[in-house]
Amino acid sequence: MDISELRAKHPDHWMKAAALRMLAVDAVQAANSGHPGMPMGMADVATVLFERHLKFHGPSPDWPDRDRFVLSAGHGSMLLYALLHLTGAPGMTMDELRRFRQLGAKTAGHPEYGHAPGVETTTGPLGQGLATAVGMAMAEQSMQARFGKKAVDHRTWVIAGDGCLMEGISQEAIGLAGRQRLNKLIVLWDDNGISIDGAVSLADVTDQKARFAASGWTVLECDGHDPDDIDRALTAARGADAPVLVACRTHIGFGSPAKQDSAAAHGAPLGADEIARLREIYGWPYPPFEIPAEVAAAWKAIGERGAAEKAAWEERMARLSPARQAEFARVIAGEPPKKLSAAIRRLKKQISETRPKVATRKASENALAVINPVMPETIGGSADLTGSNNTRTPDLEPFTPENRKGRYVFYGIREHGMAAAMNGLALHGGCAPYGGTFLVFSDYARGAMRLSALMGVRTVYVMTHDSIGLGEDGPTHQPVEHLAMLRATPNMNVFRPADGVETAEAWELALMARSTPSVLALSRQNLPTVRTRHTNRNLTAQGAYVLAEADHKRRAIILATGSEVEIALAARELLEADGIGARVVSMPCWELFSAQDEAYRRKVLPAGPVRVAVEAASPFGWDRWLCGERGSEKKAAFVGMEGFGASAPAPDLYRHFGITAEAVAQKVRDLL
Amino acid sequence: MDISELRAKHPDHWMKAAALRMLAVDAVQAANSGHPGMPMGMADVATVLFERHLKFHGPSPDWPDRDRFVLSAGHGSMLLYALLHLTGAPGMTMDELRRFRQLGAKTAGHPEYGHAPGVETTTGPLGQGLATAVGMAMAEQSMQARFGKKAVDHRTWVIAGDGCLMEGISQEAIGLAGRQRLNKLIVLWDDNGISIDGAVSLADVTDQKARFAASGWTVLECDGHDPDDIDRALTAARGADAPVLVACRTHIGFGSPAKQDSAAAHGAPLGADEIARLREIYGWPYPPFEIPAEVAAAWKAIGERGAAEKAAWEERMARLSPARQAEFARVIAGEPPKKLSAAIRRLKKQISETRPKVATRKASENALAVINPVMPETIGGSADLTGSNNTRTPDLEPFTPENRKGRYVFYGIREHGMAAAMNGLALHGGCAPYGGTFLVFSDYARGAMRLSALMGVRTVYVMTHDSIGLGEDGPTHQPVEHLAMLRATPNMNVFRPADGVETAEAWELALMARSTPSVLALSRQNLPTVRTRHTNRNLTAQGAYVLAEADHKRRAIILATGSEVEIALAARELLEADGIGARVVSMPCWELFSAQDEAYRRKVLPAGPVRVAVEAASPFGWDRWLCGERGSEKKAAFVGMEGFGASAPAPDLYRHFGITAEAVAQKVRDLL
Repeated sequence: MDISELRAKHPDHWMKAAALRMLAVDAVQAANSGHPGMPMGMADVATVLFERHLKFHGPSPDWPDRDRFVLSAGHGSMLLYALLHLTGAPGMTMDELRRFRQLGAKTAGHPEYGHAPGVETTTGPLGQGLATAVGMAMAEQSMQARFGKKAVDHRTWVIAGDGCLMEGISQEAIGLAGRQRLNKLIVLWDDNGISIDGAVSLADVTDQKARFAASGWTVLECDGHDPDDIDRALTAARGADAPVLVACRTHIGFGSPAKQDSAAAHGAPLGADEIARLREIYGWPYPPFEIPAEVAAAWKAIGERGAAEKAAWEERMARLSPARQAEFARVIAGEPPKKLSAAIRRLKKQISETRPKVATRKASENALAVINPVMPETIGGSADLTGSNNTRTPDLEPFTPENRKGRYVFYGIREHGMAAAMNGLALHGGCAPYGGTFLVFSDYARGAMRLSALMGVRTVYVMTHDSIGLGEDGPTHQPVEHLAMLRATPNMNVFRPADGVETAEAWELALMARSTPSVLALSRQNLPTVRTRHTNRNLTAQGAYVLAEADHKRRAIILATGSEVEIALAARELLEADGIGARVVSMPCWELFSAQDEAYRRKVLPAGPVRVAVEAASPFGWDRWLCGERGSEKKAAFVGMEGFGASAPAPDLYRHFGITAEAVAQKVRDLL
Repeated sequence: MDISELRAKHPDHWMKAAALRMLAVDAVQAANSGHPGMPMGMADVATVLFERHLKFHGPSPDWPDRDRFVLSAGHGSMLLYALLHLTGAPGMTMDELRRFRQLGAKTAGHPEYGHAPGVETTTGPLGQGLATAVGMAMAEQSMQARFGKKAVDHRTWVIAGDGCLMEGISQEAIGLAGRQRLNKLIVLWDDNGISIDGAVSLADVTDQKARFAASGWTVLECDGHDPDDIDRALTAARGADAPVLVACRTHIGFGSPAKQDSAAAHGAPLGADEIARLREIYGWPYPPFEIPAEVAAAWKAIGERGAAEKAAWEERMARLSPARQAEFARVIAGEPPKKLSAAIRRLKKQISETRPKVATRKASENALAVINPVMPETIGGSADLTGSNNTRTPDLEPFTPENRKGRYVFYGIREHGMAAAMNGLALHGGCAPYGGTFLVFSDYARGAMRLSALMGVRTVYVMTHDSIGLGEDGPTHQPVEHLAMLRATPNMNVFRPADGVETAEAWELALMARSTPSVLALSRQNLPTVRTRHTNRNLTAQGAYVLAEADHKRRAIILATGSEVEIALAARELLEADGIGARVVSMPCWELFSAQDEAYRRKVLPAGPVRVAVEAASPFGWDRWLCGERGSEKKAAFVGMEGFGASAPAPDLYRHFGITAEAVAQKVRDLL
């Protein structure tokens, strides 16, 4: 439908949509930066969605049973901000719109979770919103299974662009959603045929509708500028029994005389002249950031549409038993249950007493075996490595369309999609997701893992096979630089526990974290129990601690993490046998150690003794603790990997790369 | 077709295929580690491929016009090793097969490029082989366009598993290949319905054939255990006018009484009892690693099949002019042309004289403008950010099915697929690929970038918008930890040039590298020319160098890279104005600096003066140069990012995060 027909046939709709368009156009112009083309193209779809389909209450963006609306094409952020402003989201004032893309504004360049109420997830990196939405839709089903349809019954809507659909992560999301038959997930594809470099056809000839259908999606189409046709499609979408793609045929930069249907509309201000012309074409004579009263009122009414539904929901919730209400509130708030710490303490005690020799991946399974029964909100899974990641405990049934009470997700060979779905599960609320793969394949999941950290959500990455200790699979499977990569990422706790006790402690910390994702780097190979004396206190919470003090006069400190703590202890024995006193410091989490006060850090790592660190990974970053924090380059050395690994049995590799107690002891002697 | 029918109808085929199967089964059993199920399932397809379709000459795995054979399902490595051994690949002795997965063997757990002749690319991380093969098929077309069909005319064959197809990168590869209509790319899908966790249907219901067809592929099927049916499909595949998927219905662990069609066959030895049963079922009474003479002879003949074709090719090549022959040899060897260095020198001189203030992304374009005309083997591209990455020079036409002479690839919004295709272009030989995206989206490309480093191929990643200096797009687009992540990766040169001169030098080094990929981290924002005195010598080759010496007595060294070198120089001015002598060291490439001898490193970074480093990125790793390399924690500080960025104009962000000349100068004063 073209503009003149649209304006003539649907004048009320037109003005509401024009408000979205002009707010976007003017904000981008004011910022001299941003993406006007997408809001101009999708304003009609968004208007119909918000006016007739989205279950929401503008002033209550935290209402747990709201429909989730995800702007996967995050560059079109002004569309979202305009919608939030017009429908009454708290704090999303016209001033915030005026300050689009300025320091401290709620209106960041791309939607940032936590910056503004109503932003359901951070988007911008393409495909992430779509894949995150899959997790949200899974969370809705899981919560519904746990709390009933009266408490939880909503949809997840996504606006996605061509870029989202071209990114590989989209296929992982499509496949997962199709398998899980998430029929309350509806993706509105902004089918405008334009990407930054020009026509999409420069790079892609994919029939997207056929592609989605191939994974079991229901596929619908509409003219994205015809309100009736949009309404028809969205109505049909709500009745589908599979996830739905609605291909919305739109024009990027709709109405712009010079830039409609061109890449020029995508990512730059339209310019004053073009905007002036647009005001005429749109019949929108108002100055920037001014909305005529009747249009504002119409949008306000849309924002209030859900008030009654919300009130009814609150009434239904009030009828739940107090215990159920408290449980709902607890899991939505992301509070771990009180029983968790006691369960972890019991497990620790048992491990310290029985001193099993198991891989930390197995120790992780043992921890989950006490966690999952007391935390009904955990939802585990693996990217097709269940038996290797040890992520499934016997009480977890598969999460499937037939069994939404299941708490174990077969994510398939989709590390990136899994990580994004975990973000969605966490963002939705009510779920504590964890998921496993090999540590080296954090490479595949990086895009979504970074968003976990940026958004500050409680996701737990169970990353096993964390070094050359995995042996024969060889260098493609052996992480070397990955600990450095993850430690360099802000707001991410990277745990590399040395034994079952530290593993249990790491799990407790990961689940207690309120705004930080965690990575558990776990061994494939068996490791002895090094924490043989039980303590209720969670020593891993300090990040690093003295595991074994020197017997002789302390002349060396050996720092180690994970599977190399065993080597550090053996090196200590060798040195002590020679009369050289050596302390062993276990450092399961650098981030938490960095957060301790200086007095504690100095106590663990006093200046003076020589320091040798041992970790079967890249030395990158270790100078912080060796030469820095009052160490000294002349009295410090590292034992670990200088390059990629190799394919051989693990013991051969440790010898080959010189990561042995003898090598550590020798470094100490060389430095003394 | 089941085993009894197959053995009865095709006894000769059976024995050849059984040789592959038993070598795989026995090698995995000997190693007590590995993946027998896939070779057992795909042996029939591989036998027909090698016997009747693959253009190759076993003893000459480096013949440039050979068909490429990529085992994307790399865990099935024994299938490849068995094929290489039986067809006479140099060095792939039976002893190597016996030493499967042992230290130093050519028979690594997964196929490792460079470990054994005939391994075309490193595989194991799923999906990579498929996506790399797309680049190989592009290289073939590009080389054919440049050297003619008589010199270059071959196919690329891929064996891919369900895991390859579930990984997101596969969609990027499928989309790119479909758009490029690479009809000489043929993917043989091991359609066995089993993944590690069990039935593929646990995690996926995708109709793969429909999915490939949706991206313009020709889709064929065959019974993967019926030699005639396989032959029919492969024959048809060779005649297609689009890339081809052949869905080969197979049984994982074919013939194993206990493990066929089960995940148990996938990744563990079958066990002695099961193998004994299998010998009976296969009619293969021979001991492990023994091949009956007639079967060995049949395979040897297959290995020799291509001898005549190769001889004919050599004859045709000999008829080319000596200049063409030399040019072909040069680009296949990956030698940059002699003219390159002179062109770079001229450009550097011009920049030092005219001192433009341009972003290093623009400086990169300027460098490409002198490189591309003298290096016809460069193939550029971008993941839909051409105008932002400045990767296209006017002489580069788009590479399309209609114009294979084009040297610019519109990769689409597919960072991972682009990086893998670049690996394929480089591995094929004859092409020098470079490709652009934003530095932060190295996250999306990590899987393939790591393989660039592990394989040691000459790929050049043009990563623009390399810090908060990109401004308003905000934290999702602002790299913080990415320099650390890339620097921590072994065998990867990470260049962060400060101006046009360093950018040109970095480009020269990236193209001269023989076995190291390069990342160019480039600014969005304009930067002054800091190398204002021309020198023919490539100073960036030293990794770090004294850019500005102290005027007053040297009491401080300011270390900086890229866009912060300008800040370091301004800080130096502030300090010198106070009578504090300060040296500025530009560090465009840590890796190359680390490779210099100690004397040079000590000369650039003498012990004594205080040190302040400034880089708009995570401090992670900087202690190496601040507290280490004879610095001292008490006399060192870092100015940069401690967390994620924000959305605002770039100058506001630099002020907000305190990355200013004033802050650097103050840190120096505080330390003195």
